[in-house]
Amino acid sequence: MTESRLIGPVRVVGVGLLGASIGLGLKAKGIDVILADASPTHLAIAVDYGAGRPAEPGDRPQLVVVCVPPDVTADVVAAELEAFPEALVTDVASVKLAVYHDLKARGADLSRYIGTHPMAGRERGGPMSGRADLFVGRPWVVVDHGNVSYQNAAAIDDLILDLGATLVELTPEQHDRAVALVSHVPQVVSSLVARRLIDAPHAALNLVGQGLRDVTRIAASDPELWVQILGQNAGPVAEILRAYRDDLDRFIAALEDFEAPGARRRIAEELFGGNTGVERLPGKHGVDRRYASLIVMVDDRPGQLARLFNDVGDAGVNLEDLRLEHSPGAQVGLAEIFVLPEVVERLTDELAARGWRIAG
Amino acid sequence: MTESRLIGPVRVVGVGLLGASIGLGLKAKGIDVILADASPTHLAIAVDYGAGRPAEPGDRPQLVVVCVPPDVTADVVAAELEAFPEALVTDVASVKLAVYHDLKARGADLSRYIGTHPMAGRERGGPMSGRADLFVGRPWVVVDHGNVSYQNAAAIDDLILDLGATLVELTPEQHDRAVALVSHVPQVVSSLVARRLIDAPHAALNLVGQGLRDVTRIAASDPELWVQILGQNAGPVAEILRAYRDDLDRFIAALEDFEAPGARRRIAEELFGGNTGVERLPGKHGVDRRYASLIVMVDDRPGQLARLFNDVGDAGVNLEDLRLEHSPGAQVGLAEIFVLPEVVERLTDELAARGWRIAG
Repeated sequence: MTESRLIGPVRVVGVGLLGASIGLGLKAKGIDVILADASPTHLAIAVDYGAGRPAEPGDRPQLVVVCVPPDVTADVVAAELEAFPEALVTDVASVKLAVYHDLKARGADLSRYIGTHPMAGRERGGPMSGRADLFVGRPWVVVDHGNVSYQNAAAIDDLILDLGATLVELTPEQHDRAVALVSHVPQVVSSLVARRLIDAPHAALNLVGQGLRDVTRIAASDPELWVQILGQNAGPVAEILRAYRDDLDRFIAALEDFEAPGARRRIAEELFGGNTGVERLPGKHGVDRRYASLIVMVDDRPGQLARLFNDVGDAGVNLEDLRLEHSPGAQVGLAEIFVLPEVVERLTDELAARGWRIAG
Repeated sequence: MTESRLIGPVRVVGVGLLGASIGLGLKAKGIDVILADASPTHLAIAVDYGAGRPAEPGDRPQLVVVCVPPDVTADVVAAELEAFPEALVTDVASVKLAVYHDLKARGADLSRYIGTHPMAGRERGGPMSGRADLFVGRPWVVVDHGNVSYQNAAAIDDLILDLGATLVELTPEQHDRAVALVSHVPQVVSSLVARRLIDAPHAALNLVGQGLRDVTRIAASDPELWVQILGQNAGPVAEILRAYRDDLDRFIAALEDFEAPGARRRIAEELFGGNTGVERLPGKHGVDRRYASLIVMVDDRPGQLARLFNDVGDAGVNLEDLRLEHSPGAQVGLAEIFVLPEVVERLTDELAARGWRIAG
């Protein structure tokens, strides 16, 4: 564990998933974390959960991290800038230009505010879903608006480094256009596909496979939160949706006159375009990139996995995740073991020495 | 292993993923499987892989299963009906009405043809990705067109039963509308979203999270195959896409004038509709429903998982899959163990007796 360069205390306002995770991560680095939340119940849960301590009179935080819903982010940032005139204040809202404009319009002290956006999250919310490693290996965007001195901003870099995230610098405009494409438009599309299922006959629902499940997974997201996010980024989101809608119109026209010259080609081109687009995604197979993996061949009978994990345990290595693939017909299965990157080489050697066949 | 009621031999024409998997599954039941494929290389691989044997002069299959691309399915079914005048012939194409109309127009012997569609598949194709358990617990649609006697159709039921799938009876029209909604429309939507990524700046691609990955996963599908599928089911797909496009138009209009009265409510309602739709999906969390699961609390340190799997192995139970969730901060993790449904109760008792804390 590298030592933190943050002095602290760090005050976290709003102890949902992100706030609680920040608290847990910083506490693990030995930082004094002060928690605040509009809900006394949430606050008490987060304190019990070990994410930090309640505020005390006379607290003088070095850094304030505002983790509240988007529609009150600017209000809370402004209040924190006033309440702690020596602190650097940041927020983690998922749209950046609107908060900045709002603060500027109020005449807030922008020399002590810098917006950020950690690209991390899970389906569940609330302090109990917080985890210290939520940000490990994830991008964390810092948006530079040019009013914060390099020296003042250093605490933000330390925060991101402490939590194991990767710092990405963008302008607020770049950030908002990027998240419109990679986050907000997919949310809209997923919700609208899921909406088609409201009146679906049971016979159809019984045929559902993984494809539809994947496309509609994020349709379960909180509508209230998303109305706020989409409202703050309406321009960039609408622009991409219009281009998408034009593609869709052409696609429908081709389907409606499938035997017309060029209709098949148009459909093929749109589908090929999808291939090309998805190939641009980094780490497209969705493997958790915080961990390294190795693939071990395992005989498909009781006790073999236990023997494998005994050997992993004997090597002093903690298993972070595991995937199994095997066919009853094939008599052999593949176990993909995920471990911290720094131990993968040693583990591979140790398992090979114990007679395991390493497939990759 | 229950004994098969199929007499065989069963002739499988086309040894891609589905054909090879059917061969492997039937061979595991002791059935004589004859393989045929337009590609001698594919055929040789499938035979080596243990999915069946090459055809021999004088073969008299009881049942022929046609597993070729949609645009040649009717041709091959017609040829097989001619070549094996005593056999029942089926196909596994993913659109059913077009094949039936085509066969009827040619005057094929419809008293020996019945179409089916197994709802199973994986991203990888080809005989090497085949697996004997591909269909276990999956729906397998049989479309009844009224020309096949109950007695003649029995071999189809036996085939589906042998492969562990669940028989679903639909009319061809019901089937094609259902797959338009749960499979074909999601494919189009996913491809068109992925298409937006072609010109995305690298800064945006670096921020990609699991949401976009999920929405675009099936955009990697084979365009050639999908042009065939969509062409055969153009009417039902276009109908659903038009309703989806109308929702999208209203959504864009609301975003473009977000401060107008009612705009926020419209957006919230569309997103709530997505919640309602996705809640209708059976087993919505995407868990593999072939297996039962139990959740065990595990101390987060080396050797604990090995101890757990030792105990699972000692109980004589084969672990089918596993998911781990743990936070370094929390000192305790959850291991969700997937096993065959018939052993889950006994395993729960045995693990509890050995001191494991069962969380669910």
